Amino acid sequence: MTESRIYTAALVIIGDEILSGRTQDKNISQIALWLNIQGIRLREVRVVPDVEEAIVEAVNALRARNDYLFTTGGIGPTHDDITVDAIAAALGVDVVIHPEASEVLHKYYETRGGINEGRLRMARVPDGADLIPNKMSGAPGIRHGNIFIMAGVPHITAGMLDALTGQLEGGAPLLSHQVGCWVAESEVAKLLADTEKHHDGCQIGSYPFFREGKVGANFVVRTTDPHKLAECVDALKLGLRGNGYETVDGGI
Amino acid sequence: MTESRIYTAALVIIGDEILSGRTQDKNISQIALWLNIQGIRLREVRVVPDVEEAIVEAVNALRARNDYLFTTGGIGPTHDDITVDAIAAALGVDVVIHPEASEVLHKYYETRGGINEGRLRMARVPDGADLIPNKMSGAPGIRHGNIFIMAGVPHITAGMLDALTGQLEGGAPLLSHQVGCWVAESEVAKLLADTEKHHDGCQIGSYPFFREGKVGANFVVRTTDPHKLAECVDALKLGLRGNGYETVDGGI
Repeated sequence: MTESRIYTAALVIIGDEILSGRTQDKNISQIALWLNIQGIRLREVRVVPDVEEAIVEAVNALRARNDYLFTTGGIGPTHDDITVDAIAAALGVDVVIHPEASEVLHKYYETRGGINEGRLRMARVPDGADLIPNKMSGAPGIRHGNIFIMAGVPHITAGMLDALTGQLEGGAPLLSHQVGCWVAESEVAKLLADTEKHHDGCQIGSYPFFREGKVGANFVVRTTDPHKLAECVDALKLGLRGNGYETVDGGI
Repeated sequence: MTESRIYTAALVIIGDEILSGRTQDKNISQIALWLNIQGIRLREVRVVPDVEEAIVEAVNALRARNDYLFTTGGIGPTHDDITVDAIAAALGVDVVIHPEASEVLHKYYETRGGINEGRLRMARVPDGADLIPNKMSGAPGIRHGNIFIMAGVPHITAGMLDALTGQLEGGAPLLSHQVGCWVAESEVAKLLADTEKHHDGCQIGSYPFFREGKVGANFVVRTTDPHKLAECVDALKLGLRGNGYETVDGGI
């Protein structure tokens, strides 16, 4: 089997509401899980304020070194929605009205009070962009090259991801298997390190918890190769049992 | 009243478990809210994998341009906990055993199976560091200059924040007031922009929602000046009512 290349993505979350603590982010996790299924790894995330220079810096740094760049937030109708302008600035292109987006919005607002200046703002795109369908509300997402500009409201983001499913080239999906154990991770740190070292291409993550008055940990083995995954998981379970600990497949 | 200077912080979240989507981040929001109370604004966040170069790049970029840098994650006993080594590399200092941390850990594990190599790893700090008390579990957090190295497990992070409360110099806290309204934000986009423009030093964020079959939005006015806050909120409410919409203080 030839090792397939690893496809990576980055995410820029644009929003004062996340940085102020007002809103608990939910997009990192849902985008990461969706990307895994597409065979793409979320490599880095930045959360930036609604400030053009901050958006430009993040977009330009991350689009260059990842296969894909996703952004969420700042594509609504109000004055604090500056994502399109910032990304156009980052790309050095003009902002133009996308005719199809304009048509979608005119139609959507026909029965919702009519189009106005703010609503038409949502038809603005960086020149050269395509649309990402939005089945939840009127305004579409935007694709420009390897950049995917999406809504910040999680259920609208989810609809846009759905529209993109199967559209992006990826590699072998990252597989994972979780093993739970009522053990202090510090008790078996050497076993974890040795097991990872002897299973090339596998990473073992250790996630401790404290429940029912006892410490435990879930260990997650990650790799793209199903055989290597099975071998590493077996070795880990054997090692934990050899130390006198029961293991629970799927985690605790 | 003289305008006090704005203190900023950045946060680096270190963890494959966030980037893989396995774990939903809870630290951005809790750290942001805690910082607000200290009079410090969370200015930017990066989520990076358990990879030394990625940590070094983020730490060096962000510590230089913010008053404070916080990190979460990667300070446990296992092989994937590389935060201390990465930050020492970023600072160009050695990793040393902190005698007090070593003492704390020896004592903590006295009744928990005894100290071992993995557990003693948690006494390692970048040379020159002080400790941040950890009242939830044994291993302390670490302070080095303007860098605060904290645990990733949210309730342990919370305990470390608690230990730091009142210890950091900040400016005037960012005040905010939320006004809810059953209106499509796109209906009042111009009002929001005009109101913000006429109230210097105030930002108005617009956060739409869809509930009970109806669209609505919460508008958040943010500023450090309580008088400006009250004036801007009053103007916004007057404007919304002038357009025929009821407003709900505190939000919907």
